[in-house]
Amino acid sequence: MRTNEEWMDLALNLAEATIGQTSPNPSVGAVVVKNGELLGVGTHIRAGGPHAEVHAIAQAGDEAEGADIYVTLEPCAHYGKTPPCAELIVEKRIKRVFIACLDPNPKVAGKGVAILKSAGIEVETGIQEERALKINEHFFHFMLTNRPFITLKAAMTLDGKTATSTGDSKWITSAEARNDVHKERHRHDAILVGRNTVEYDNPNLTTRLPQGGKNPVRIILDTNLSLQSHYAVFNNEAPTWVVCGKNADKELFNKTCPHVKVLQMITKNIVLSDLMEWLAEENIQSLYVEGGGTIHQAFIKEKIFDECHWYIAPKLLGGQDARSVVGGKSPLLMKDAENIEFSTFKQIGPDLKIIATRRVEP
Amino acid sequence: MRTNEEWMDLALNLAEATIGQTSPNPSVGAVVVKNGELLGVGTHIRAGGPHAEVHAIAQAGDEAEGADIYVTLEPCAHYGKTPPCAELIVEKRIKRVFIACLDPNPKVAGKGVAILKSAGIEVETGIQEERALKINEHFFHFMLTNRPFITLKAAMTLDGKTATSTGDSKWITSAEARNDVHKERHRHDAILVGRNTVEYDNPNLTTRLPQGGKNPVRIILDTNLSLQSHYAVFNNEAPTWVVCGKNADKELFNKTCPHVKVLQMITKNIVLSDLMEWLAEENIQSLYVEGGGTIHQAFIKEKIFDECHWYIAPKLLGGQDARSVVGGKSPLLMKDAENIEFSTFKQIGPDLKIIATRRVEP
Amino acid sequence: MRTNEEWMDLALNLAEATIGQTSPNPSVGAVVVKNGELLGVGTHIRAGGPHAEVHAIAQAGDEAEGADIYVTLEPCAHYGKTPPCAELIVEKRIKRVFIACLDPNPKVAGKGVAILKSAGIEVETGIQEERALKINEHFFHFMLTNRPFITLKAAMTLDGKTATSTGDSKWITSAEARNDVHKERHRHDAILVGRNTVEYDNPNLTTRLPQGGKNPVRIILDTNLSLQSHYAVFNNEAPTWVVCGKNADKELFNKTCPHVKVLQMITKNIVLSDLMEWLAEENIQSLYVEGGGTIHQAFIKEKIFDECHWYIAPKLLGGQDARSVVGGKSPLLMKDAENIEFSTFKQIGPDLKIIATRRVEP
Amino acid sequence: MRTNEEWMDLALNLAEATIGQTSPNPSVGAVVVKNGELLGVGTHIRAGGPHAEVHAIAQAGDEAEGADIYVTLEPCAHYGKTPPCAELIVEKRIKRVFIACLDPNPKVAGKGVAILKSAGIEVETGIQEERALKINEHFFHFMLTNRPFITLKAAMTLDGKTATSTGDSKWITSAEARNDVHKERHRHDAILVGRNTVEYDNPNLTTRLPQGGKNPVRIILDTNLSLQSHYAVFNNEAPTWVVCGKNADKELFNKTCPHVKVLQMITKNIVLSDLMEWLAEENIQSLYVEGGGTIHQAFIKEKIFDECHWYIAPKLLGGQDARSVVGGKSPLLMKDAENIEFSTFKQIGPDLKIIATRRVEP
Ligand SMILES: [Zn+2]
Ligand SMILES: [Zn+2]
Ligand SMILES: [Zn+2]
Ligand SMILES: [Zn+2]
Repeated sequence: MRTNEEWMDLALNLAEATIGQTSPNPSVGAVVVKNGELLGVGTHIRAGGPHAEVHAIAQAGDEAEGADIYVTLEPCAHYGKTPPCAELIVEKRIKRVFIACLDPNPKVAGKGVAILKSAGIEVETGIQEERALKINEHFFHFMLTNRPFITLKAAMTLDGKTATSTGDSKWITSAEARNDVHKERHRHDAILVGRNTVEYDNPNLTTRLPQGGKNPVRIILDTNLSLQSHYAVFNNEAPTWVVCGKNADKELFNKTCPHVKVLQMITKNIVLSDLMEWLAEENIQSLYVEGGGTIHQAFIKEKIFDECHWYIAPKLLGGQDARSVVGGKSPLLMKDAENIEFSTFKQIGPDLKIIATRRVEP
Repeated sequence: MRTNEEWMDLALNLAEATIGQTSPNPSVGAVVVKNGELLGVGTHIRAGGPHAEVHAIAQAGDEAEGADIYVTLEPCAHYGKTPPCAELIVEKRIKRVFIACLDPNPKVAGKGVAILKSAGIEVETGIQEERALKINEHFFHFMLTNRPFITLKAAMTLDGKTATSTGDSKWITSAEARNDVHKERHRHDAILVGRNTVEYDNPNLTTRLPQGGKNPVRIILDTNLSLQSHYAVFNNEAPTWVVCGKNADKELFNKTCPHVKVLQMITKNIVLSDLMEWLAEENIQSLYVEGGGTIHQAFIKEKIFDECHWYIAPKLLGGQDARSVVGGKSPLLMKDAENIEFSTFKQIGPDLKIIATRRVEP
Repeated sequence: MRTNEEWMDLALNLAEATIGQTSPNPSVGAVVVKNGELLGVGTHIRAGGPHAEVHAIAQAGDEAEGADIYVTLEPCAHYGKTPPCAELIVEKRIKRVFIACLDPNPKVAGKGVAILKSAGIEVETGIQEERALKINEHFFHFMLTNRPFITLKAAMTLDGKTATSTGDSKWITSAEARNDVHKERHRHDAILVGRNTVEYDNPNLTTRLPQGGKNPVRIILDTNLSLQSHYAVFNNEAPTWVVCGKNADKELFNKTCPHVKVLQMITKNIVLSDLMEWLAEENIQSLYVEGGGTIHQAFIKEKIFDECHWYIAPKLLGGQDARSVVGGKSPLLMKDAENIEFSTFKQIGPDLKIIATRRVEP
Repeated sequence: MRTNEEWMDLALNLAEATIGQTSPNPSVGAVVVKNGELLGVGTHIRAGGPHAEVHAIAQAGDEAEGADIYVTLEPCAHYGKTPPCAELIVEKRIKRVFIACLDPNPKVAGKGVAILKSAGIEVETGIQEERALKINEHFFHFMLTNRPFITLKAAMTLDGKTATSTGDSKWITSAEARNDVHKERHRHDAILVGRNTVEYDNPNLTTRLPQGGKNPVRIILDTNLSLQSHYAVFNNEAPTWVVCGKNADKELFNKTCPHVKVLQMITKNIVLSDLMEWLAEENIQSLYVEGGGTIHQAFIKEKIFDECHWYIAPKLLGGQDARSVVGGKSPLLMKDAENIEFSTFKQIGPDLKIIATRRVEP
């Protein structure tokens, strides 16, 4: 009745619906089909819970025998919080396994397929692979590079300003664009801003959507731990981690903010590459950098980013003295600007959202 | 994170994937969501099995409390093979229920919503209603009219011929178009042809798709029960029902074909409106009429059809004596032709598929 | 300012606007451009009048020197009713000539380009060639095959009928579709019907469009010259030619219809291939065959057609006895049907227009 | 054959092809049609030459009598360099006149139509009006406001920079985007930059396109006439006008640059609104303001602009000290930014072109 591609699309729809809620696990969906009829569906809800295959096979019950399963990611092969799905598939006498993409995790890669094949099960991989890779883009990036997927986010006027010379910035973009930012927060494991942003804007940095959403970890860069405890980011609505240099007084800070985790670097200043290593150890697979301009400039200069999400409001502010979306010191020559590549343009309310990727020179 | 429409689309994707396999029940999907996160998914697999809501709520477990559920059809309110889903939703303390369309079944209509509302649950209906109605088009038609949804299917050359003057017809349309016909068989409860089609073409009338598919009931119109038992439609691959007039010798026929169900009309000839009543009693909600030309003409003349699926091959046969796609006697005036309305055109391989609906004059 | 393709598109727009009015000449447009500025435009209005290049160069005046010209067809090289355009271009010191497609006419082919090049003018050909070939599709076909481009036109119900058993046919298709037929008449040099169509429908066979239009020559096939002079096709609104067999009484007929041209074949019956030769001699480059069913069958059987224009009305007439869109005798086997290829589908009002081309087996 | 809209489209294609070359006249096209056949085409080539109607009617010759004419702008009614077209139409006994839009010029408005109607000619206006207004957007704006249509053009990195802190700016955008800028120069009557741009970049400010193009007048704002004569803008490739304040030494400047026209304001500084009045007197109907940042800020602050053309390169430069696309002093509050409205986004090579219009609060 349906083609392999169409059944896989259903499994991918299930996976896609859990983006943002399964970290550090990937989003996965599965469907069991026999004789053109759907017998079971499943999706992995969150880390620690049953895998997608477990749900789908359970729903199919005895009919799973001789059926096909479509899984968006290679079935796992290791004994973790749950027994390996590859063995479950063998045990339930599934006939054929269709897989969108192999697992990038070195603990699993290819092992799931090997178990299935050695049990005489037919395996086909690469069905709707591009879509599957996109759904778990953050997870795959993390597995392959051991560094979080980093998105630089900015909202500016058409002339590149984020605030007036006096620091006023409310509001550059529309409610629709700000709503889109909250969707992105839901998709990311952590959010990062600099000390200045906390001081000037006192943001909450939580996900506030009409339909709810997951809060990412809030990460604040504050070299000297000079921020006072009354700021909104230090409330209990979501975890907050503060990053500081080696000379900051961590103990003093933790007296006033005991629930805030402090990462103290062994260097005087915050070194972004070291920070990324530490975040990787903490299983932060995706990081949403909301600025301000000095923070952005630091990430850009060190080429530590993967994507830019730029919201442009239909406004012209003017002013060489206004706050620039990317601050710090300019390079001396235009040819030393960081090259990116536009990938999508999308109008959101009155604003424009541009997504660009870092251009890696060949 | 997602809008109500987007969550309902996921539930509808699940429902859509079971079209053809749940009759006489409708295709239904459900998803449970809280705080922007997916907690459970479910779909009704086949009549007699658990409803979509049961699966979705079971997967959500304790987290169902305070969550939202999106259901593609109003939750049931009557004790049938399963306890009513509306009561399950109340019991599990779901907070809000989003419904695509109300149940047309008089046993349920509005009762499910009433149970939910009287328990203080917020209910919103009509989300993605058009798509939901389309998915259960056959079911809704049957519930509202107590007559199967009838599709007339034909395959012809561009000049309206289905066979040469000698009866040769293999093949008019391409393999791709014939494959599409098998998809339609999977979607319908029953398939109907006349005695001549059995005699001339000896078709199997089963669903033969690369991915498998459900076989509809095969219904043969044979007024005098004159068909011999050796024809393919009388094999065991799917149920077969034969319809005859009051003078046919049913006992004799059943001696040679004991597994074939015979419907003997109380009239000498087969009266289509009576036949439709009987099919309705047998819970046949959708009927796929594959011809030939005399059968089609009978359905058209009595206006007993809802849709036409016309496959046109890029061929010109020629011949006033060739067999016409709609046979019988012509009306005397062109203005007495039956009016239909084209709804979609689609190229399938080299052929054209036209879907048209009967035009009901206001 | 504009690219070569964009300037050629303007010239092609001019050519396209004269389709149907220049026969036996092709439709041609020309524009003269210098330094990004348009200096002159021209189009060939009708046979005997100045060529497109003449108009465009005249408008440019002295500024033509050093300018570019974009012509949709190779400039002519022979002394006909006007001096050759290639020499005009040389004389006016045009700098570059851009040509969409070369002339298929053996009297000209390549000679125009040769004259230009030997005068040191830069020549580029093949710009927007596909569009240019389509605009003069009839002309090119005629030049390459020495046979008119033949379009079979039919209007039928979805079940392939053009009239009831009593011959009633008014109206199968909508006013919108009939309007489209008149546009096609304007595009063709001649229109052809059989004697039966004249007798049954008494059509005028002229072009009746709200905006006016050119009348094609009306060609009637009447083997015995048995049609009476009172039929509408014999009026003075457009030229009429009648084709008959060798036994018909031509002199008698011409007494009653002196203004009608009669072609008497040397054979008893009308031989289509002979007729096409004669039409070619008369410079009929395109023929629109409007039926009826016997005529269509004759053209199809002898494979003497290039395109089919099929108007399908959303009606089901029914009746093996109704008149079939393609009549005559059917071949014995379906595999002997004539193969065509669908090229476009277009909804016109409530009806469907299908354009198909004859499939030439490799 | 063709509808009124289709014939008018042909006339508009002709008009569109002359955008940029007819100022201070509008771009106009005309076609003459009778009985569905094209008889003549015409377009106004440049100020001083014959109007579009003259060409089209001349080509039609005697056949113009009783024909229809489609004109993209109301035929003129005044004796200027040519006799009025409305009278020509009457004299040639044209039957019907189809007009896309009325003339905004107070010397003509409605008078052409009145002449035609009083001669008994049928007149229909408003056919494809929107497209016609767009083609002569600059001309209409000028006629209705007596101020040039002003386009602010900028090319910047995604973070709003036009040069590094050292002033280096070569090249922000791609060759494709720069080519598009040259197309815009061709479309405008004049181009304007500030003294700084001349000093830093020494641009030529001419139109350099592979296909050629018209050079706009180059206007330089230089309050003190301090620019030296060796800059490229003072060469002879196009007219150059310099604008200065009342204290500048105009005589001294004209000694070194005698061919440059100097506008000396009666105020110490350059007042933009006064400058626009002067440009209007000089028949400059469209002005393309290429910056730099201080110039742009001046136009924005005084709301003297109609459209923004923003080219964004896929680059991130960084630097609060880099040169901002709109300079000067920032307002104190974000709500005082100038509101615009995005109208189109278009990828040009690797860059993005945004067109926005000034938002006039109701
Ligand atoms: Zn697993
Ligand atoms: Zn239920
Ligand atoms: Zn010529
Ligand atoms: Zn005029």
